[in-house]
Amino acid sequence: MIPSERDDRQMTLSMYQLAVPPFVQGLGALSAVLAKAEAFAGARKFDAAVLLSSRLAPDMFPLNRQVQIACDFAKSTPARLAGVEVPSWKDEEKTIADLRARIARTLDCVRSFKPGQVDGSEEREVTLTLAGKPVSLKGQPYLVHFVLPNFYFHSTVAYAILRHNGVELGKRDFMGNVPGLSEQLADRA
Amino acid sequence: MIPSERDDRQMTLSMYQLAVPPFVQGLGALSAVLAKAEAFAGARKFDAAVLLSSRLAPDMFPLNRQVQIACDFAKSTPARLAGVEVPSWKDEEKTIADLRARIARTLDCVRSFKPGQVDGSEEREVTLTLAGKPVSLKGQPYLVHFVLPNFYFHSTVAYAILRHNGVELGKRDFMGNVPGLSEQLADRA
Repeated sequence: MIPSERDDRQMTLSMYQLAVPPFVQGLGALSAVLAKAEAFAGARKFDAAVLLSSRLAPDMFPLNRQVQIACDFAKSTPARLAGVEVPSWKDEEKTIADLRARIARTLDCVRSFKPGQVDGSEEREVTLTLAGKPVSLKGQPYLVHFVLPNFYFHSTVAYAILRHNGVELGKRDFMGNVPGLSEQLADRA
Repeated sequence: MIPSERDDRQMTLSMYQLAVPPFVQGLGALSAVLAKAEAFAGARKFDAAVLLSSRLAPDMFPLNRQVQIACDFAKSTPARLAGVEVPSWKDEEKTIADLRARIARTLDCVRSFKPGQVDGSEEREVTLTLAGKPVSLKGQPYLVHFVLPNFYFHSTVAYAILRHNGVELGKRDFMGNVPGLSEQLADRA
């Protein structure tokens, strides 16, 4: 790749830029948030696994399911846009360490995609199953209007369950590393 | 605009496509969610304004502030990317009707931007105030890594406060109108 091509790519929003780096940011933040939850349970001397079954409402999913779903959106999105098979994993996490391992595995999966596999997928047909039936969407609305709201929904609810249970967290924990911003905020405690 | 130009634009992800339609979707959903909350309060015969001060944790913002902040991210983002002044509004909503009016005003504001004002702003410098100090970001990381996680965070917390208080809502209420998907789901009640 010649330098001018690389520069062009970085200066223009692309499907890859929206289907990989946001998950790297969001999942990294979620893993750090879970680490703080585990430390909180240790300091208060309760079993951290209690948090995994905590919910904000009886008919909302508990923490472990929220994290699993956030990971599933992250791993399936670049795969579907690239037209490769979505890896299927069992949902069997029992501890915060298990959830953080799933996030790490998801990050490896997401990071394995290259821009050339995902870029240009705006019009590519993506098929998924909703409420037991197949639906299809073009790549761009799938990513912008379906995946991102879902991913942030589940990662926010995971964070909110922990805040509701007293874990000491702030908005910057949720945001994680904002490229170009974290350096400017580093000197403000 | 000649047809081939319009087709090209729709087939390629752009800053406008990411800085306007997601807010139209998310704010429309949030307004409908608030309408359901008001109806719930009416059916249960309690003052809906109680919900506006409800929180998930004592050190998290209540519902009215979550909605105000979601609106503020929506109205400021296309303005900053377009390099025009961000409208400043007082935070004085006291009822769900007030919050829905703020959302309607935000939607008008967001919809007033044209693709030509926002497209191509990937490298444009955006300055904002965080923790009382100015920080600057380029347009693309500002939108992708700062604004969207924040917008979905606050709209999700607003939704979660209502779920936590028993309002009958489902994930599809949060998602709102996903372009191309809602039609396929319309026949499934």
